[in-house]
Amino acid sequence: MSFTLTRLKRVQIGVIGYNSGSLPIKSKTLDLAYEVGSFIARKNAILVCGGLGGVMEYSCKGAKDNNGFTIGIVPQEDYSSANKYCDAVICTGVGLSRDFIVAYSSDGLISVGGGVGTLIELCVGYIAKKPMISISDSGGISDIYGGKYLDERNRMMIEKTESPMEAVEYILKRNELR
Amino acid sequence: MSFTLTRLKRVQIGVIGYNSGSLPIKSKTLDLAYEVGSFIARKNAILVCGGLGGVMEYSCKGAKDNNGFTIGIVPQEDYSSANKYCDAVICTGVGLSRDFIVAYSSDGLISVGGGVGTLIELCVGYIAKKPMISISDSGGISDIYGGKYLDERNRMMIEKTESPMEAVEYILKRNELR
Amino acid sequence: MSFTLTRLKRVQIGVIGYNSGSLPIKSKTLDLAYEVGSFIARKNAILVCGGLGGVMEYSCKGAKDNNGFTIGIVPQEDYSSANKYCDAVICTGVGLSRDFIVAYSSDGLISVGGGVGTLIELCVGYIAKKPMISISDSGGISDIYGGKYLDERNRMMIEKTESPMEAVEYILKRNELR
Amino acid sequence: MSFTLTRLKRVQIGVIGYNSGSLPIKSKTLDLAYEVGSFIARKNAILVCGGLGGVMEYSCKGAKDNNGFTIGIVPQEDYSSANKYCDAVICTGVGLSRDFIVAYSSDGLISVGGGVGTLIELCVGYIAKKPMISISDSGGISDIYGGKYLDERNRMMIEKTESPMEAVEYILKRNELR
Repeated sequence: MSFTLTRLKRVQIGVIGYNSGSLPIKSKTLDLAYEVGSFIARKNAILVCGGLGGVMEYSCKGAKDNNGFTIGIVPQEDYSSANKYCDAVICTGVGLSRDFIVAYSSDGLISVGGGVGTLIELCVGYIAKKPMISISDSGGISDIYGGKYLDERNRMMIEKTESPMEAVEYILKRNELR
Repeated sequence: MSFTLTRLKRVQIGVIGYNSGSLPIKSKTLDLAYEVGSFIARKNAILVCGGLGGVMEYSCKGAKDNNGFTIGIVPQEDYSSANKYCDAVICTGVGLSRDFIVAYSSDGLISVGGGVGTLIELCVGYIAKKPMISISDSGGISDIYGGKYLDERNRMMIEKTESPMEAVEYILKRNELR
Repeated sequence: MSFTLTRLKRVQIGVIGYNSGSLPIKSKTLDLAYEVGSFIARKNAILVCGGLGGVMEYSCKGAKDNNGFTIGIVPQEDYSSANKYCDAVICTGVGLSRDFIVAYSSDGLISVGGGVGTLIELCVGYIAKKPMISISDSGGISDIYGGKYLDERNRMMIEKTESPMEAVEYILKRNELR
Repeated sequence: MSFTLTRLKRVQIGVIGYNSGSLPIKSKTLDLAYEVGSFIARKNAILVCGGLGGVMEYSCKGAKDNNGFTIGIVPQEDYSSANKYCDAVICTGVGLSRDFIVAYSSDGLISVGGGVGTLIELCVGYIAKKPMISISDSGGISDIYGGKYLDERNRMMIEKTESPMEAVEYILKRNELR
């Protein structure tokens, strides 16, 4: 009798975008982040993010309010900077280069607003050929790069949608096709 | 009315030790790893490990057989090398220096056998003042360093025990006292 | 008698751009990289780069033909992938996240062509407030982002110039003003 | 006509040991570090180290007093913490996991005293099969591990010698034999 164990790993969806701090973030953007997190949880995927504030925190809260599981991958060596809605915190100690780890650890990326840190995560997703989709009208990098390629190689388009639910479904469908 | 949100993060216990591959590992050592994983799950803590084979795989299997949650932090950029008992895989892409991330991401470390990679993780735990305990008679680094300090600063002793259950309880108790 | 030692560190200028491999690179772009390296050496600055082929290799060659000193910071754990014009090779073992180390280790960045890897390095330079300048008509990311900011914070403009000599002088002048 | 370019890379020797700070370091140990740096420079090798104080600073000073070239690989994102005797500073931003980069970037390691950080660097050298030698009577990790293997695989012995000159010559000879 032959037997092949199925890998137990669940789908991991990365949510990337504005951190709290330097710039004020529109409440609409944070609401969109919350919704993205909610749908990730309802679809039984694991939410992966950079573990800090702003879009990261709101998406984690959305996931936890829907009984999801959340992992925050923080730059620091300890978890004290992580938002309170992370079930698990990965303390990298590698500073902002943890952006690579967030992208590599995601089976797909959903961007909500965002500055250069978010752009770095999209670039890593592009290199690693991850499905990526940005939420329209969420501001910043997401609005600039939705519907575009990141360089002339045209390797992976960053899709765009107004609907957090569609964004989650896009990542899930692309993972089924693999 | 004042309100303080409790951090949702669960206790994360790191299991470190032999990878499969170069050296044959005694079945007793793998059994001990399985038991360590079992007790981590029964105590509702999250099991963190380096995500690969040997002690990492057996401890993850022990946790999954007891309805636990397991996170593998692998050196690679993708999850294909992770053992099949990881619920979530953190793909660091930073090679073996992911040993730092395993130790930083653990609220305490339990060592079962192990070579220099395990020694590196104990060193990082020592620097970061994590509670550490080795399983006696599990071989390698665990037998050499159980009951000792790693340098002349005598910062944190690596405790030792023959009992996987006691090891898990030691880490949990030390985290309650923090 | 009071005494303050001057720091011996020399100015380190990062050259970033296309790696050899996937895409063919125009000979004009490689000539521009060679010239950038030549001027860095003539000005007695250290050339820092990602250590591999294409723009990295040609800029290192330009520096060595002018008695300069070159450091290649490679993704790998050993130096076998480094181009032959590196005086010193930093073997990071952290994969492509070494882009952060290239940017952090540079007192200014000059971009010549380039894809998403180059864009990541510019993003890190932007976060760390490094002077940055791109060579016009060198292709790719350099042509797209020369004269622009990388996000809505407008923190540091990526300057642009057609002249490799002016690019080097710009970085040197900006470091004198610090 | 056939032509093979010789790689220009010079031999890079890593000096590892106590940082300044927590523990007082014996002046004899610092003198030994200075001498190690002096001989590295006289043999025209590049000195690689962690870039900070204590053994790192004294070895760099020894090298610079003998017209050598020194590279400090620091944990921080900027060079302000580096000792003043570094010609070039690699700013990793990856925290203490830069120990991996120090070891990977060295064609051999010489240890002078040292705590757990030094032990981590020796472990990485052991994994990467680097020639390693410790200076006897320099204290700490160097005295404990000189003449020993780091785990049961007996992969690479850490040699020991009282003479800084012999230590440098050992690393050079082992690199010629490769």
